[in-house]
Amino acid sequence: MSKVFASLGMSLDGFISGPNAAPDNPLGDGGLRIHEWVENVESWRERQSIGGGESNADDAIVRENFARAGVYIMGRRMFDEGEQGWPDPPPFRAPVFVLTNSPRAPWVRQGGTTFTFVTDGIDSALAQARKAAAGKDVQISGGAHTVRQFLDAGLIDELQIHLAPIVLGKGVRLFDDVSPALTVEPARVIHSSAVTHLTYRILRG
Amino acid sequence: MSKVFASLGMSLDGFISGPNAAPDNPLGDGGLRIHEWVENVESWRERQSIGGGESNADDAIVRENFARAGVYIMGRRMFDEGEQGWPDPPPFRAPVFVLTNSPRAPWVRQGGTTFTFVTDGIDSALAQARKAAAGKDVQISGGAHTVRQFLDAGLIDELQIHLAPIVLGKGVRLFDDVSPALTVEPARVIHSSAVTHLTYRILRG
Repeated sequence: MSKVFASLGMSLDGFISGPNAAPDNPLGDGGLRIHEWVENVESWRERQSIGGGESNADDAIVRENFARAGVYIMGRRMFDEGEQGWPDPPPFRAPVFVLTNSPRAPWVRQGGTTFTFVTDGIDSALAQARKAAAGKDVQISGGAHTVRQFLDAGLIDELQIHLAPIVLGKGVRLFDDVSPALTVEPARVIHSSAVTHLTYRILRG
Repeated sequence: MSKVFASLGMSLDGFISGPNAAPDNPLGDGGLRIHEWVENVESWRERQSIGGGESNADDAIVRENFARAGVYIMGRRMFDEGEQGWPDPPPFRAPVFVLTNSPRAPWVRQGGTTFTFVTDGIDSALAQARKAAAGKDVQISGGAHTVRQFLDAGLIDELQIHLAPIVLGKGVRLFDDVSPALTVEPARVIHSSAVTHLTYRILRG
């Protein structure tokens, strides 16, 4: 059966975005530094239609995630931020389910990406995603609020944290008042001089 | 010259102790889980005069730290908590400088541990520690407040974080409102199924 996984960048002090996040500053002050490492990797640049970049340990992680994700689920705010910014074809090349309160017809893009808008909650989105995944995995793309919803509901099997060697001091925390009932076990650690990739199996949400 | 390093356990959500910490509950609710991994390692148990334990990757890290630390610096609260609890000989087997506001004569214990009480601040403690280290390294033992004082003053060369695969939800954070000016670079990552040992070089405090 499809695994459900999330993959997030986090600063050493636990933030997934910096302070003063706003529509024109979606990652907050300094938040881009969390994802600096990914800008240089080949597989990410391929999907952004930029080209170039390095094929290294960081690249291998990103490439693996693209390969295993048969479908994506994201929150409305993440979609809104990406709607203008993603190239066409967008980087997903797979069905994307967007959690929203506003019904909207599916939005078909080039390269296999179709955004489907789900107004009846995370369980419905996950059921639709599992069906569309065709045996591949389901990636909960973000943002943090959406990942937390799925975590709290015990619906995530694996959490990847890309721990950036930076501190932000303030911002939005991935684990803000998360329940200590969340039980995880380290599954894999891969690191480079730019970032540490931590993979945890979720034993209990 | 001696390096100055700190070595702290931290939960995945960034806490070095849990909520409701008090003199009879120094690590707070659930805080012992941060250090669970260390209870099983041979070198730690040796220093606690317990014996037994495992010789594994986690043990190697602890053993290495004991070997490199020629002297320790700790805050008053950490000393107070340990004063009753440490065995004699205490685990340090080296000079320990305790930051305090209350003058007290040195306290000589068995096995090479002498506690010296420093009332004139962290620079003085570090100068005395460097002299006593005889070329070995200086370990800032804790607690978090003391480590933060040294970090903020740019006096720490290397920060080890032993990232436990647990979440606490609330408690005392290692990086609470730390300045984003803190600049680190990953130096080493060693992991086991119990804990991930992250070592960062501090480039700018």
